[in-house]
Amino acid sequence: MKKILTVCLALVTGTLVAQNVKSPSGNISLDFRLVEGKPSYSVTYKSKPVVLSSLLGVKLKETTDLASGFSIDSIGNHSFNESWKPVLGEQSSIVNHYNQMTVALSQSAGRKLNIIFRIFDEGIAFRYDFPRQKDLNYFVISDEVSEFNLTGDHKVFWIPGDYDSQEYVYNESKISEIDNDKLNLNNGIALKSIGGRYVVQSPLMMKSQDKLYLNIFEAAVVNYPVMHLNVDTKTFKLRSQLVPNAIGDKAYLQTPCVSPWRTIMVSDDARDIVGSKMILNLNDPSRIDDTSWIKPMKYVGIWWEMHVGKSTWDFAGSQNAQNAATQDLIPSGKHGATTENTKRYIDFAAKNGFDGVLVEGWNVGWEDWFGNWKEEVFDFVTPYPDFNIKEVTDYAKSKGVKMIMHHETSGSVANYERRLDRAFDNMRKFGYPAVKSGYVGRIIPRGEFHDGQTMVNHFNFVARRAADYKLMVNSHESSRPTGYSRTYPNYIAAEAARGNEFNAWSTGNPPMHETLLPFTRLLGGPMDYTPGIFEIKMNVYDPKKTEQVHTTLAKQLALYVTMYSPLQMAADLPENYERHPDAFQFIKDVAADWETSKYLEAEPGDYLTVVRKDKKSDKWFLGAITDENARKSQIALDFLPKGQKFKAIIYEDGKDADWQKNPKSYNIRTVEVTSKSKINLVLAPGGGTAISFEPVK
Amino acid sequence: MKKILTVCLALVTGTLVAQNVKSPSGNISLDFRLVEGKPSYSVTYKSKPVVLSSLLGVKLKETTDLASGFSIDSIGNHSFNESWKPVLGEQSSIVNHYNQMTVALSQSAGRKLNIIFRIFDEGIAFRYDFPRQKDLNYFVISDEVSEFNLTGDHKVFWIPGDYDSQEYVYNESKISEIDNDKLNLNNGIALKSIGGRYVVQSPLMMKSQDKLYLNIFEAAVVNYPVMHLNVDTKTFKLRSQLVPNAIGDKAYLQTPCVSPWRTIMVSDDARDIVGSKMILNLNDPSRIDDTSWIKPMKYVGIWWEMHVGKSTWDFAGSQNAQNAATQDLIPSGKHGATTENTKRYIDFAAKNGFDGVLVEGWNVGWEDWFGNWKEEVFDFVTPYPDFNIKEVTDYAKSKGVKMIMHHETSGSVANYERRLDRAFDNMRKFGYPAVKSGYVGRIIPRGEFHDGQTMVNHFNFVARRAADYKLMVNSHESSRPTGYSRTYPNYIAAEAARGNEFNAWSTGNPPMHETLLPFTRLLGGPMDYTPGIFEIKMNVYDPKKTEQVHTTLAKQLALYVTMYSPLQMAADLPENYERHPDAFQFIKDVAADWETSKYLEAEPGDYLTVVRKDKKSDKWFLGAITDENARKSQIALDFLPKGQKFKAIIYEDGKDADWQKNPKSYNIRTVEVTSKSKINLVLAPGGGTAISFEPVK
Repeated sequence: MKKILTVCLALVTGTLVAQNVKSPSGNISLDFRLVEGKPSYSVTYKSKPVVLSSLLGVKLKETTDLASGFSIDSIGNHSFNESWKPVLGEQSSIVNHYNQMTVALSQSAGRKLNIIFRIFDEGIAFRYDFPRQKDLNYFVISDEVSEFNLTGDHKVFWIPGDYDSQEYVYNESKISEIDNDKLNLNNGIALKSIGGRYVVQSPLMMKSQDKLYLNIFEAAVVNYPVMHLNVDTKTFKLRSQLVPNAIGDKAYLQTPCVSPWRTIMVSDDARDIVGSKMILNLNDPSRIDDTSWIKPMKYVGIWWEMHVGKSTWDFAGSQNAQNAATQDLIPSGKHGATTENTKRYIDFAAKNGFDGVLVEGWNVGWEDWFGNWKEEVFDFVTPYPDFNIKEVTDYAKSKGVKMIMHHETSGSVANYERRLDRAFDNMRKFGYPAVKSGYVGRIIPRGEFHDGQTMVNHFNFVARRAADYKLMVNSHESSRPTGYSRTYPNYIAAEAARGNEFNAWSTGNPPMHETLLPFTRLLGGPMDYTPGIFEIKMNVYDPKKTEQVHTTLAKQLALYVTMYSPLQMAADLPENYERHPDAFQFIKDVAADWETSKYLEAEPGDYLTVVRKDKKSDKWFLGAITDENARKSQIALDFLPKGQKFKAIIYEDGKDADWQKNPKSYNIRTVEVTSKSKINLVLAPGGGTAISFEPVK
Repeated sequence: MKKILTVCLALVTGTLVAQNVKSPSGNISLDFRLVEGKPSYSVTYKSKPVVLSSLLGVKLKETTDLASGFSIDSIGNHSFNESWKPVLGEQSSIVNHYNQMTVALSQSAGRKLNIIFRIFDEGIAFRYDFPRQKDLNYFVISDEVSEFNLTGDHKVFWIPGDYDSQEYVYNESKISEIDNDKLNLNNGIALKSIGGRYVVQSPLMMKSQDKLYLNIFEAAVVNYPVMHLNVDTKTFKLRSQLVPNAIGDKAYLQTPCVSPWRTIMVSDDARDIVGSKMILNLNDPSRIDDTSWIKPMKYVGIWWEMHVGKSTWDFAGSQNAQNAATQDLIPSGKHGATTENTKRYIDFAAKNGFDGVLVEGWNVGWEDWFGNWKEEVFDFVTPYPDFNIKEVTDYAKSKGVKMIMHHETSGSVANYERRLDRAFDNMRKFGYPAVKSGYVGRIIPRGEFHDGQTMVNHFNFVARRAADYKLMVNSHESSRPTGYSRTYPNYIAAEAARGNEFNAWSTGNPPMHETLLPFTRLLGGPMDYTPGIFEIKMNVYDPKKTEQVHTTLAKQLALYVTMYSPLQMAADLPENYERHPDAFQFIKDVAADWETSKYLEAEPGDYLTVVRKDKKSDKWFLGAITDENARKSQIALDFLPKGQKFKAIIYEDGKDADWQKNPKSYNIRTVEVTSKSKINLVLAPGGGTAISFEPVK
């Protein structure tokens, strides 16, 4: 259903021109204005101002900016309403419904810029479109003008605008209180490149004093750097801050081309934002024709045992570069990725119905991998002497288990790219269907940042090249996704936020962390958060340790539902699961690809309750989590199909559960329910509830 | 034959320590001194000072320099005298004979630096050796201290210290007259990055007032940037200037490691320098076990016709990026690399006994390739619609001709590396044994220079990776070779200096140019100079053109002998050769791999006469060239084997020949000679003589 209207306007320079476009529901309204040749926009929600007049445009290196001196050539409008089927997702069908306005601008010298606005029911988006034109072919973006002029001193959940990492705990404050200089940066992040005192990252989740939920983000970041936001803490005006390259440039482009979409979601109901598919909708459809090889995966792996200090990635156990250089490594006996240990995980996966086994530390280089800005660390094909890749992959195959490859690059992207085909050939040779890639450390090419155009292009390139090999990709320490998994659905997951691992060896993630991620990081695509930690306190591994996961055990189960990903790790050690087979049953049962999802309760930073229906069965799963505060609520089960009885297995916090004092207290009970039933959820501080609903025959 | 002596010295700081080492002949003497903890050296030749006391050492980023505060731990001496057989070369066996002194230094904090000196009969070399040590593992070189403190205001042949190009005409002046600000830079070089007003490149060829020939260069530049030389034009002190990376660093290293060798050749006979194999000797032996696939090649190609404007690299003939972007290119009819034209060259090669045919412009991208700092220009595998790669390669095979692949990167090395395996796979698929690579344009990763560590590593990586595929490499616009072809003999040639092509469309190369290159560029390895131009004046292609090759026709023949390369192009068009079959015979006959070579006459910038014996036959070939001045000389043929008669076919300048007025005048005569004969060489201004000696049975 497309409707195209084109309004041709007389050339009007130096005067005010205003055009309006509304969301399909009519709740959101956007005004475009051209005042004295400068383009700007403003947004209202249910007639309340949300974004005040904010400038638009881009600055170009060594040539006239595309930010002023404009007149309007034409304004075109059209409506779009279609649905599409994601290969994997929170729902089997996604509606993409918006009204679009395209403003065609030109400068007197003849250069052209189009600004395209799309207004959805849950927010607005705009992008710059640089059409083919005589006087603009190659150009370099030195700055983007895009402003987000907010109406007040909103509550904001923010992390510093670091060009190399998003693995921060969220700060909750007023906009006026944003100040990176006041942060405690002893937070376990090794490499930090904060782009300014008042620069924060998007997705930026906010709540206004009149209880509007606001989210500023971007979609379809392709051949462009990540946008951070420079905040004027006095006027509440946010300005785009693009991540520079090694020599300070932002983006190298050639007409015809487009910028990413800049997005502003707004609603008086937080569930509209957490459940929005706007970011995916703003990306191009899948470019992979045959997607039959793209599958959800639940997996276990040799990974958490390194985080808790039980074993090491490196064979020599020394992390000593000079030891590594001798070529005659002395095994420490603590190496995790041995053939024998891998077989143990394969057995565990096979026994418990997991699809895959990840093995980190299988390949040579780990003695010398971190913090040295070293270009040739890994070759991605040579196993340690105690890891027999043929034996392991043959064994996995005999057990019906898939192996997940691991490619840590230590940030040396130049090295990874020149070895990528060999690495993927090796995966194909041994039948690995998926790779977890890692980018810990300063980037090589030196001077580049994780969030710059070069690296954005790299992450996207790896996804595309992996698709050529029919491989799925799960990137860690990449720039955060902005919906590219719609276009390359083999890019099944990414980390790109502070994951569960930080709880093992740093100040960790406060209980509110997981209630916020679905409002921020997850809007752009699935996260490999690695939930499922049953041994919550690290002192079980070493009495001197004080670290812990900031959770109850039941909440770890609920995360499999609240943190959508088609790639879900059961991150804890097999022996820890074997001590709690009853609770482990939920992880075994829970689906990873969904027919439908409904967000029942949501308040960013406080709580989240979501229920989802498995795509392959009639089972439903519910996840409810809270922050550091205990919480009670009653859930109506009217999402269940009418007239059908279900057995609800409820995995809840024990009466005395508390993330700090008694995190492992949980209770499992079974009740029979229908769509008319209600269930009381009782969540401990830092707790959660997971429920599986199985149809009763 | 190795002899190792180690002298242990008491720790001596703050006082003068001197140690001397001499060349095997005793003519060259080097003194090492440690004065107040600072290392320095000086050099004499036949007791005359050549290099006055000059500092040594390196500066490190963010840590204490390795340039002062030293005491001597030990001084070790040994002698070395071996010969080795290059796979391809000017001679079948090379003597590597030197005396070595290793000075082991340490600082009070414990850090160690060794300086290794090698004294050959034709010069000295030194390098920094960073041994494995507790307090120095990873480090960044921010500057090199290395000085070359010369004794006077020598005559010097110099080109500016450009980080991106060596394709300059040599300037001949006194050291005191070096000044990049006074250069006319309208010289056909598109990309220039000159590193300072008084910075020049090595190899730097000089002649002192007392007629000593001096050459400063480097060898084995591996994992290190190119060294340029910063000249103090008043004191004649030269200082190392390393090429920086995108963020100003010079080299990223890890102990144990070594710097390249810094070399100073000196002799009172210029032939000792032009014939020296010191640079090759200072490189590591071949790392390729089976070298049977590395073969000399004489070739023709679709190349010069583009330079003279007869055809184009690009299919659309527009060099219009936006045209390219439309995906529906309109052929101009001038595209050179058509199937039909390629077959014509294959026929010509087969008929005349050439090994190979190069085809440039065969692949899509040329409409949009130059000057845009564009990352994805070429994919290195997709032919233009009028170039049928299968048909062409099948045809070549049927004619016994090898195809030479062309990979122009336009400087986008990031793109080339991520596509290199695909590109090499494609070559293997179609049976190409060799690739000519090109690096015209600003480097991507952006901010890097052609001569930085990153790019040095790239050029060496491509050679190594090509060896994995058994492919030979001929790089154009690379950093200039420093003998790495000894280690990877499949790196058969490079351009990396101002080649013959500049004569077609710029001010060109003055007649002295080729008399100098063997004293400079060729010391580091073979050059693909592309000689053999018979149609010397460009006005034959377009009456408006005034450009010409600065040569006589006979000199073009002589270049096949004077410019050593195992890869030699007959660069002119087939139809131009067909008009001069008698002269063309020399190009058909001349060898490209040699049993022995003798430099008979040599004066840098003035003239050069060399004779070489074919490795596969008993034929000898002589080349003699001069600069803009006519020249006569008499050559004794005592290099020929005694008692054997030879037919000498002499290709010489016509009586009225002159590079400017009458370049195509030549004369061919045949005489019978023995080792007792003498031949009078009569060279026109800008002229030359080529002679083939065939044994008379």
